[in-house]
Amino acid sequence: MATASLRLIPLGGLGEVGKNMMALEYGHDIVVIDCGVLFPEEEMLGVDLVIPDISYLIERQKKVRAILITHGHEDHTGALPYVLPQLKVPVYAPRLAHGLISVKLKEHRLLEEADLRMVTPGDTIELGAFRVEYFRVCHSIPDAMGLIIKTPVGTVVHSGDFKIDHTPVDGNTTDLTRIAQAGAEGVLLLLSDSTYAELPGYTPSEQVVGEALDQAVGEATGRVLVTTFASLISRIQQVIDAAEHHRRKVAVVGRSMEQNVEISRKMDYLRIPRGLLVGVREAKKLPPERVVLVTTGSQGEPTSALVRMANRDHRDLQVMPGDTVILSASPVPGNETVVGRTIDNLLRQGARVLYERVATVHVHGHASQEELKMMLNLARPRFFVPVHGEYRHLSAHASLAYEVGIPDSNIFILEDGDVLELTPTGGKVGESVPAGHIYVDGLSTWGTGNPVLRDRKVLAGDGIVTVIVVRDKATGQLASPPKVVSSGFLEPEETHDLFQRVSSAVEKALTSDGKPRSGGRLTRAKVKETASKLLYKETGRRPMIIPVTIEV
Amino acid sequence: MATASLRLIPLGGLGEVGKNMMALEYGHDIVVIDCGVLFPEEEMLGVDLVIPDISYLIERQKKVRAILITHGHEDHTGALPYVLPQLKVPVYAPRLAHGLISVKLKEHRLLEEADLRMVTPGDTIELGAFRVEYFRVCHSIPDAMGLIIKTPVGTVVHSGDFKIDHTPVDGNTTDLTRIAQAGAEGVLLLLSDSTYAELPGYTPSEQVVGEALDQAVGEATGRVLVTTFASLISRIQQVIDAAEHHRRKVAVVGRSMEQNVEISRKMDYLRIPRGLLVGVREAKKLPPERVVLVTTGSQGEPTSALVRMANRDHRDLQVMPGDTVILSASPVPGNETVVGRTIDNLLRQGARVLYERVATVHVHGHASQEELKMMLNLARPRFFVPVHGEYRHLSAHASLAYEVGIPDSNIFILEDGDVLELTPTGGKVGESVPAGHIYVDGLSTWGTGNPVLRDRKVLAGDGIVTVIVVRDKATGQLASPPKVVSSGFLEPEETHDLFQRVSSAVEKALTSDGKPRSGGRLTRAKVKETASKLLYKETGRRPMIIPVTIEV
Repeated sequence: MATASLRLIPLGGLGEVGKNMMALEYGHDIVVIDCGVLFPEEEMLGVDLVIPDISYLIERQKKVRAILITHGHEDHTGALPYVLPQLKVPVYAPRLAHGLISVKLKEHRLLEEADLRMVTPGDTIELGAFRVEYFRVCHSIPDAMGLIIKTPVGTVVHSGDFKIDHTPVDGNTTDLTRIAQAGAEGVLLLLSDSTYAELPGYTPSEQVVGEALDQAVGEATGRVLVTTFASLISRIQQVIDAAEHHRRKVAVVGRSMEQNVEISRKMDYLRIPRGLLVGVREAKKLPPERVVLVTTGSQGEPTSALVRMANRDHRDLQVMPGDTVILSASPVPGNETVVGRTIDNLLRQGARVLYERVATVHVHGHASQEELKMMLNLARPRFFVPVHGEYRHLSAHASLAYEVGIPDSNIFILEDGDVLELTPTGGKVGESVPAGHIYVDGLSTWGTGNPVLRDRKVLAGDGIVTVIVVRDKATGQLASPPKVVSSGFLEPEETHDLFQRVSSAVEKALTSDGKPRSGGRLTRAKVKETASKLLYKETGRRPMIIPVTIEV
Repeated sequence: MATASLRLIPLGGLGEVGKNMMALEYGHDIVVIDCGVLFPEEEMLGVDLVIPDISYLIERQKKVRAILITHGHEDHTGALPYVLPQLKVPVYAPRLAHGLISVKLKEHRLLEEADLRMVTPGDTIELGAFRVEYFRVCHSIPDAMGLIIKTPVGTVVHSGDFKIDHTPVDGNTTDLTRIAQAGAEGVLLLLSDSTYAELPGYTPSEQVVGEALDQAVGEATGRVLVTTFASLISRIQQVIDAAEHHRRKVAVVGRSMEQNVEISRKMDYLRIPRGLLVGVREAKKLPPERVVLVTTGSQGEPTSALVRMANRDHRDLQVMPGDTVILSASPVPGNETVVGRTIDNLLRQGARVLYERVATVHVHGHASQEELKMMLNLARPRFFVPVHGEYRHLSAHASLAYEVGIPDSNIFILEDGDVLELTPTGGKVGESVPAGHIYVDGLSTWGTGNPVLRDRKVLAGDGIVTVIVVRDKATGQLASPPKVVSSGFLEPEETHDLFQRVSSAVEKALTSDGKPRSGGRLTRAKVKETASKLLYKETGRRPMIIPVTIEV
């Protein structure tokens, strides 16, 4: 299906269009940008992970030249272990992302067979009809990059996840010069991060947080416990710097944080003075005012050290009055309640708690409105597609693009599976291709709209009642009174008499015409109807009712 | 248990201490402040409502002189239909709250027997040892009030839910003079609203929203649809004013909104020019630029008109390109995701959507930090108890009190069931009494920590597998192969072979020593263990497993 147009297809983002995976296609070549995983939303009961639907790519396996990773966050890399076994293509990634992906692939025993390649800013990669160049951006993980992709139709600029920080922790600023050069040479299409397109102004620099952390550590009279995202390496650096400044030792608590600190240190993304890091046991022996603990749990994860401490069920660590706890992160949407509860429980135990609402202990990693306009004005694209965000964020970003002068007809808000076809002079959204989300639950994967999830919703609401009817194969008579068992419905003491009444009612219904009804399906329908009516009348609830017939 | 001290006891607030119900006790007298309901949190699977535990009051029924309602919001009045049948005492309420409660009690067929009395600001009520006076405050519902309660130990001031608005819609400002007088005469204890104690500065006046709404309606070229809380009568007044100003008709959509508009209009809380209100049918015949629709759905409630329109499944109303939709409310914590999704779906259909993050179309009804300090400085209490808020809000409010000069030892952060004992010179938190939450689910009520909810959580996660073993009573032999059924576990086509293997494994396990095991409990344990191991190995999941044995 070679065409003379360039095709852009977001393949999966859970409303967050293009965040997790996009395809860029021209003639016989496809490059894939990012390969991320999503964490399930509240109503995806029991689902472990959400990955993009790659059936479009699998059908065009031979055309796929590479997967281009922009940075090391899970929502841009986490689906690789699920995708690579089905799509054997080279993966390009910045150095830190390369390191993190290697660890992950090793855990999945996929590292040997994977073709993982490291890129640095300025590298140029020829991939069929595409020439790809990576450029540096600032984000909440080191080594984040954007892409300049030369195509036969024109140049595509992809911002990656970015903000414009003139004083980042590692000194590596967003490469505005390279974007400006591309803009001056002519950009066909800009894809830009929309996560904070609703927010006016500029996102503050990491420097602000560094100063606030230093002050908080300096003021603390007891232990300091800092919690943040394990991938926010620059924040960990700031904590280490503050600890050093105030002559405290640092102990890292929790597996994912330890792992990331170790990798980052090995790869020189963290500068840790000799002797500063200590183990948790050693930290416990030091005077409280000489200790900083760094850990995860900023999202209220129930198994994290922070939440365990908040709930007084951590094996080694207890909150002590005089502790200062700093939540150097903001709750991801959906986590507000659990994070709030964690703060409450820390306060109850006498800790001082600093969090985003009451202190400047966090800034996020995405551009606000003025930075987004800056990106638009430097890249000066003919066409614009807002990416990375819910529909309202894309919509707000589209308005900004219109404000800086891009005509409405050249702005496209895409949804997963939409195919944008671009020529040097025009664009249109044509066909739709399969895209969206695949749920990973245990060892199974499912499409959306799965009946299992609908069932779980009913189970979660009113529980389940199973009614078992055993009949004699030969006579068709009931071999015993119908047995009723339940779960998640009522307390056992509430069910005893009630279930006896259900059993009698079912027995009566099945034998009302003098002989037991035959036909499994009919019997089950009758059992269900009888039990359901009686239970609703007596309890006001509608549990799931499962009739089972057994012949003996 | 008469004592010479005054006892203050928060009885239920779901972390939000004192929001929903508090008791004030002296000698042989108790007055109860508010009687609210809570909407269940996410993890309270299937729970309909949460009400306070009133066992402390029921045991002291004869001492309870009255329930004092501060305003008409559900979280201050909604438990009355559950509490009044158990606690037959007079209920005092401001005029609008009186009207709303009457409707609610009538629905529950409780109005006849209830002793409901109306109060106006300045009214003084003698209740045993207490003399209660209501005073006017501003809040997000008309006729909100605070309380000045004279007790033998000293004067208690309760702020109610309040903010300080110098230009409220109905012209009734918070009665700072009365609070100042009380302060000048001497206040023993101040109880004050902590909901927004984390927020610096002042809460903006409703006037700001009035102007923004007027501008939005003026600029709109098509229909305008405004959604807000049904109880936010002043906001509805602002919408009506804006509609009148721009010569549009107003149609009210949805039962709760219609009901509140009707009551408020009858009671003169809404001024609606003759001919301005039209029915939905009539509104549909008018040109779009002549119409304002007012409806609920600002919290993303799935059955609301707004959400139905957003999802394209409303019977009568469709979103049209050119519509302006105004969400004049902020999402209650926990509702952010569903509200966001509703905005997305409205935008997808071409509506312009104004919401809090992008326009000043809402301000909330609670005091921010400077207003809270004002309240503290006017009341000048000896003792302070922050109420209405999660622990972190109470804690932030306590810090403000300390900043304005109340000594730490005179500030008490209470939790439900804590008993604060006050004398004119000192206070201490002594014993704890039963308090907390009762869950209403269908026709049952439960305490917290209920096993049914734990079961529902497991069911929601991985579903349920029931394994049924039928044995011959006489011989103990299996009467048929074990039967395995499931729900919320795997798709039917995934289970067929798997469940046959489970059945065989269970059969083998039960007959492994040549004869079937006896003893129901042992059998069930064996069945559970066998099924559970096999299922985890083959699916990576841990469903709830219910073994059932039947003898025939």
